[in-house]
Amino acid sequence: MATLETFPNQFPDREYEIEITCPEFTAVCPKTGQPDFGTIVISYVPGATCIELKSLKLYLFSFRDRGIFYEHSINTMLDDLVGACQPRRMRVVGNFTPRGGISSRITAHYETQSPPKA
Amino acid sequence: MATLETFPNQFPDREYEIEITCPEFTAVCPKTGQPDFGTIVISYVPGATCIELKSLKLYLFSFRDRGIFYEHSINTMLDDLVGACQPRRMRVVGNFTPRGGISSRITAHYETQSPPKA
Amino acid sequence: MATLETFPNQFPDREYEIEITCPEFTAVCPKTGQPDFGTIVISYVPGATCIELKSLKLYLFSFRDRGIFYEHSINTMLDDLVGACQPRRMRVVGNFTPRGGISSRITAHYETQSPPKA
Amino acid sequence: MATLETFPNQFPDREYEIEITCPEFTAVCPKTGQPDFGTIVISYVPGATCIELKSLKLYLFSFRDRGIFYEHSINTMLDDLVGACQPRRMRVVGNFTPRGGISSRITAHYETQSPPKA
Amino acid sequence: MATLETFPNQFPDREYEIEITCPEFTAVCPKTGQPDFGTIVISYVPGATCIELKSLKLYLFSFRDRGIFYEHSINTMLDDLVGACQPRRMRVVGNFTPRGGISSRITAHYETQSPPKA
Amino acid sequence: MATLETFPNQFPDREYEIEITCPEFTAVCPKTGQPDFGTIVISYVPGATCIELKSLKLYLFSFRDRGIFYEHSINTMLDDLVGACQPRRMRVVGNFTPRGGISSRITAHYETQSPPKA
Amino acid sequence: MATLETFPNQFPDREYEIEITCPEFTAVCPKTGQPDFGTIVISYVPGATCIELKSLKLYLFSFRDRGIFYEHSINTMLDDLVGACQPRRMRVVGNFTPRGGISSRITAHYETQSPPKA
Amino acid sequence: MATLETFPNQFPDREYEIEITCPEFTAVCPKTGQPDFGTIVISYVPGATCIELKSLKLYLFSFRDRGIFYEHSINTMLDDLVGACQPRRMRVVGNFTPRGGISSRITAHYETQSPPKA
Amino acid sequence: MATLETFPNQFPDREYEIEITCPEFTAVCPKTGQPDFGTIVISYVPGATCIELKSLKLYLFSFRDRGIFYEHSINTMLDDLVGACQPRRMRVVGNFTPRGGISSRITAHYETQSPPKA
Amino acid sequence: MATLETFPNQFPDREYEIEITCPEFTAVCPKTGQPDFGTIVISYVPGATCIELKSLKLYLFSFRDRGIFYEHSINTMLDDLVGACQPRRMRVVGNFTPRGGISSRITAHYETQSPPKA
Repeated sequence: MATLETFPNQFPDREYEIEITCPEFTAVCPKTGQPDFGTIVISYVPGATCIELKSLKLYLFSFRDRGIFYEHSINTMLDDLVGACQPRRMRVVGNFTPRGGISSRITAHYETQSPPKA
Repeated sequence: MATLETFPNQFPDREYEIEITCPEFTAVCPKTGQPDFGTIVISYVPGATCIELKSLKLYLFSFRDRGIFYEHSINTMLDDLVGACQPRRMRVVGNFTPRGGISSRITAHYETQSPPKA
Repeated sequence: MATLETFPNQFPDREYEIEITCPEFTAVCPKTGQPDFGTIVISYVPGATCIELKSLKLYLFSFRDRGIFYEHSINTMLDDLVGACQPRRMRVVGNFTPRGGISSRITAHYETQSPPKA
Repeated sequence: MATLETFPNQFPDREYEIEITCPEFTAVCPKTGQPDFGTIVISYVPGATCIELKSLKLYLFSFRDRGIFYEHSINTMLDDLVGACQPRRMRVVGNFTPRGGISSRITAHYETQSPPKA
Repeated sequence: MATLETFPNQFPDREYEIEITCPEFTAVCPKTGQPDFGTIVISYVPGATCIELKSLKLYLFSFRDRGIFYEHSINTMLDDLVGACQPRRMRVVGNFTPRGGISSRITAHYETQSPPKA
Repeated sequence: MATLETFPNQFPDREYEIEITCPEFTAVCPKTGQPDFGTIVISYVPGATCIELKSLKLYLFSFRDRGIFYEHSINTMLDDLVGACQPRRMRVVGNFTPRGGISSRITAHYETQSPPKA
Repeated sequence: MATLETFPNQFPDREYEIEITCPEFTAVCPKTGQPDFGTIVISYVPGATCIELKSLKLYLFSFRDRGIFYEHSINTMLDDLVGACQPRRMRVVGNFTPRGGISSRITAHYETQSPPKA
Repeated sequence: MATLETFPNQFPDREYEIEITCPEFTAVCPKTGQPDFGTIVISYVPGATCIELKSLKLYLFSFRDRGIFYEHSINTMLDDLVGACQPRRMRVVGNFTPRGGISSRITAHYETQSPPKA
Repeated sequence: MATLETFPNQFPDREYEIEITCPEFTAVCPKTGQPDFGTIVISYVPGATCIELKSLKLYLFSFRDRGIFYEHSINTMLDDLVGACQPRRMRVVGNFTPRGGISSRITAHYETQSPPKA
Repeated sequence: MATLETFPNQFPDREYEIEITCPEFTAVCPKTGQPDFGTIVISYVPGATCIELKSLKLYLFSFRDRGIFYEHSINTMLDDLVGACQPRRMRVVGNFTPRGGISSRITAHYETQSPPKA
């Protein structure tokens, strides 16, 4: 599997946000063997490191031939990305195109601790 | 009536959200006998199980020949879906197309307990 | 004047929302005698009864020949609708088309009591 | 009925086009007695005179209380407008809002003679 | 099956156009037994008669329980509508919602004779 | 300068909102002498009086020949409008079209007292 | 009045098109004395010279205080622009914002001679 | 490679059009080995047979692992589709997502013979 | 200056179209020294060769520091691109962002000979 | 480097907001040497001074030839702008166009002290 790389965050004391959008995500449905398509949106407040974009692109492409459910792929991405860059907060959203007239969106969050944010 | 099926939630400890959109809902108006049309949006935080999408599609199609009011159909869906998957939270929205120049949206919520929502 | 009719709310214990949109509202400007046009959006949490849609349509059409200011028409609708169905909460919004290059929106609220929700 | 007024065309030798859009048209359905709503678009190449806009507005408002079918109202407008200003060419389009889930557009043309231009 | 009704065209000497849009069409896929959904757009230049809209609505609803392919339903509509009102020209378009990530549009034309106009 | 007129608020006990949009605002840049253009949006909760729309239109047109900076014009409007109608709350927003590839929006608020705003 | 300036066309042998859009046009209604607003679109195939943009901007701003009808302003612009740059072909379009619920578009053309191209 | 299947055209004497849109096309760039993404639009006038949609879906998915240039993939599709169903006319369009800030669209046509219709 | 490269057209006997869109074009205004921005759209029917996209990107970037007028840049691109790939037909369009409230579009064409097709 | 200039805030006692949008930002990627493009949105509540727009434009143009990462450029702008005008609060957002199918947005905030923000 592709390795997620990081680079040092040059502004570690400031709580700022990075949002990354990839409209070209594709994986394989484990039931039907047919390809699924969607847009992945990752937003996070970096800790000591930031996600390197080229390695992220390769990481997302590594799902291309995997049979995996929507819910599983989004939660797996969240776990892998949190493990790679130890962010203060992160959210991963997957908007999947319709199958059988029904479209799905999965949203998963991570926070180091319960923040005071409204 | 179609049976709603579920599958085990692989990330039961994480509070993540699933949103499902079906723009192809149709039922029959109990007064006029004419078909009604709308878009159904279901969003929920799963508990131990998730709604299986194919059975959901068949469940929504089971309204095709039923005479039922807007308010009744949305609240019935909420009851059936909560009964089937025991979510932490769920919301069902129906956007119905205009009749007599007037369009309607019905929104119903379920929560296991009053959460500390912002 | 047209009478607003209601029907029993089948889910009186659940706090759910009904939103009704009528883009075909017209009344007469009391100053100029010229017609005004706008879209009315009514949203409410029902109490023991719901507004019947056909009587609502006729009620809104009853403004067609009345000379009435924007502010007055929206606040009058709110009073009439609250009187007819005794909702837990209600909001009436009127978006009026431009006159002299200026468009207006009037928003009025009703609540049975000051709720804790933001 | 309101009278359509005209004013002299200051550029009678040039074939130029005037397009007028009124999104606030309303009449009454002769079958149901309920109001109909639509947008009227008039486009024409003027001859010796142009349509005066304020009289056009009053003319369109004169349909407010008339029971008339879509097809009839658009063709009647074309006849009245051609009679009032004797244009080189004219087109009247009516886009009517949905009734029973079905919306309609009526388009009628007038030309003094078959022109060479496509 | 529902009968298509007509009414006399009050402007038979003028070549004008009527366009009717129904976004609430549904039929059944003859292969899978699952419902299909689409928008039907009918445009025609009337001859001696016009299509009556309420009977058209009922005619389109009569496809609700029929198993029929996209191509067949659009060409059948064209045949039935031409037979009912004998128009000078007619076009029927069906825009069907995606199945398996693929959406379809079918367009069929009828003309009494090859017209000179592009 | 044009005088802002008011009329009595017929619903003084209800906290309702009036929003007025004027997309046809123009003034003169005090530096370059060139015209500036923008959209002004005024929203307020009325006290004892409401702003009369025709006088508002004339008031906004009175900026047409004044040399004034964006920030100054919006804050001046807020002061003048608050002085004229003594609202409970008011907000004035100016969206100005691009100059040198840069567009600006200025937003100013007034409140009679610090409210427990959510 | 502002003078329209030109500069030499560096590609006089090629028939290419220049389209210029100014959404910030304003003049004064000669009847009411109130300002009118609109978007002017000029497109032309240059001959020996091109319109200089800064002088065009000043030319369009020179209408700011003139009382002039829509039809007159567009035809006057066409005459002035053709006189200034002698194009092969030119079109001027004015899209004016609504007054009394009615918006207008005026389109005028100039061609040196009847061209073969549709 | 997947086989394109067809079914008999039930209206072979009528010149009607079928348009199929697949927004989920993906192949591999032969230079970089990275995936490309695009939307394929196929429109044709059928001869004796129509393209079966499920086999078309599988055919388009067969490009998923092929290294192929944009121009080659669209022209190859046109050849394969024409070979499979012998249409009267066909057009294949590919809209590819941006690479290096540049997006591409390729359009290829087939006609059995030069038709008279524009 | 960057060199435009080409590769052999694999379908030289078919008249198909390639359209390339670059929304990230920037050059320098020769009068003010300030940067200009725009979107370039190139569409062509290839002859024996196609434009290689990476060299095109570098070619377009070579304008980044050049002082050049809109009209000159578009006509220069057309000359350079025609010289590099000898297409059957080509069109270059530049949509430039507003300066002083005025935006411009320049369109230039090349054809080897007057083609029969409209 | 360009110097950010300021002018005195004429309404220093009012907490009002200024939002500035520049869709024409470009810098150079320090890895590839290729240009990056994006839209910068700056919003702030001024203290004693406001940012002068012409100097801001020149400041943003000073990035045109600098090799700098997205995260670095946005955080550097925030530092420079806060240093120049000492605002009460400021936010800088950069929306960058896609590279390798992935687009990025960076958002950084500054506040003089932790406010009781809702």
